[in-house]
Amino acid sequence: MGQDDIAQSQHYLSSDDRDGFYRTLFNRRDVRSEFLSTPVPDEVLARVLYAAHHAPSVGFMQPWDFTVIKSHAVKQKVHVAFQKANAEAAEQFVDERQAKYKQLKLAGIVDAPINLCITCDRERSGKVVLGRTHMPEMDLYSTVCAVQNLWLAARAEGLGVGWVSIIETDDLKQALGISGQIVPIAYLCIGYVDHFRAQPELASKGWRQRMSLHELVHSEQWGQEMDAELAAGIAQQADFPDAYKE
Amino acid sequence: MGQDDIAQSQHYLSSDDRDGFYRTLFNRRDVRSEFLSTPVPDEVLARVLYAAHHAPSVGFMQPWDFTVIKSHAVKQKVHVAFQKANAEAAEQFVDERQAKYKQLKLAGIVDAPINLCITCDRERSGKVVLGRTHMPEMDLYSTVCAVQNLWLAARAEGLGVGWVSIIETDDLKQALGISGQIVPIAYLCIGYVDHFRAQPELASKGWRQRMSLHELVHSEQWGQEMDAELAAGIAQQADFPDAYKE
Repeated sequence: MGQDDIAQSQHYLSSDDRDGFYRTLFNRRDVRSEFLSTPVPDEVLARVLYAAHHAPSVGFMQPWDFTVIKSHAVKQKVHVAFQKANAEAAEQFVDERQAKYKQLKLAGIVDAPINLCITCDRERSGKVVLGRTHMPEMDLYSTVCAVQNLWLAARAEGLGVGWVSIIETDDLKQALGISGQIVPIAYLCIGYVDHFRAQPELASKGWRQRMSLHELVHSEQWGQEMDAELAAGIAQQADFPDAYKE
Repeated sequence: MGQDDIAQSQHYLSSDDRDGFYRTLFNRRDVRSEFLSTPVPDEVLARVLYAAHHAPSVGFMQPWDFTVIKSHAVKQKVHVAFQKANAEAAEQFVDERQAKYKQLKLAGIVDAPINLCITCDRERSGKVVLGRTHMPEMDLYSTVCAVQNLWLAARAEGLGVGWVSIIETDDLKQALGISGQIVPIAYLCIGYVDHFRAQPELASKGWRQRMSLHELVHSEQWGQEMDAELAAGIAQQADFPDAYKE
């Protein structure tokens, strides 16, 4: 079976579909500063939740729950916990790095019309889960796949998403009434945005730059240089991501 | 700003792009049995690696590495480790459940032309990482986002992907020469496929069914019933995923 046969197979998506997928992926951003107060219609929110629910999961366990926060009072509780953690985090950096850290806006909790906590229920389908015996963390990872599905679907819908990780898990659990075996994986801020940045905010603000893919790909063994054919393929496709950027 | 203004904004992708994205997402499958031996061109592999590298990462840390395995000898080592773990895992189930487990084909390591190990370098950008002070696991989660980006991009390219989690991490590290602070996150089998299943294999084989989204969404507090508007939105969009399935 050659490439032409594959291209004609009903299971090969059209090049238009592929382009739409890549346009979504390469224009996704972590949003903190550009949220608008425009309400997010519940049917749009429903679509991105369906996208999250169609993530892969170990043993088809579907360990996720989605807690949607619209109430200002609940957001305010989470925002206070963020502020406490952010002040502690700033102390980890020194001198110019700390000054730069303090200038960054790192969360849009109160600005974003929707906040969403995605949690993992570690006992969703009993103690023994197909595929989790040797990697017990697989349910956590499945839940992260749901986060990423949602993040991309939001971009396809024109919604910005920011992931807030500067917060104590216990504070978050308390604010949202989460107990027991339930693990908060991601606290997300969601809303329409003024604009999506052309580059990741931490890059454009000089915090850290994108690495070259060449440094990150190896052949056969970890850390080993990649084979010449693959290196040529990567070099040949170097402009591929930018071709899809707005 | 109303919905019409948003729809006209340059940052709102076209409905064709959105459809291409959703068609990719809802037709993605965990593939174990349908791999073809057709070689995967290196430029196609390069594109899905670029997609993975454009995942979000905490503090723009980009903690991932990609070890591409084409060699039969390396695959064979990993396959032996899988077989050992799979025999142990089968013992966790009893009676009919065990019989059913043993009938499932759970990995395509040797069949798939490409194997890929995605790892996380926990010290990629020094000990202090923006956004990781309170959630040290964020670098692992960032790497999972790269896995999911790659999985979806592969589907857009007509490639099937399967995630092998039935393996001892130490065996995997040994087979691939991974040491120190490097954590293997995902071992993936990648290749063109005979077909993509209409439903997840574990569902069609009666292992476990997809849950209703209604059970999984809550409002304001974890476990609380969702508000009426959101419930109506979810009910209204119930056919949304199926509309994109092939």
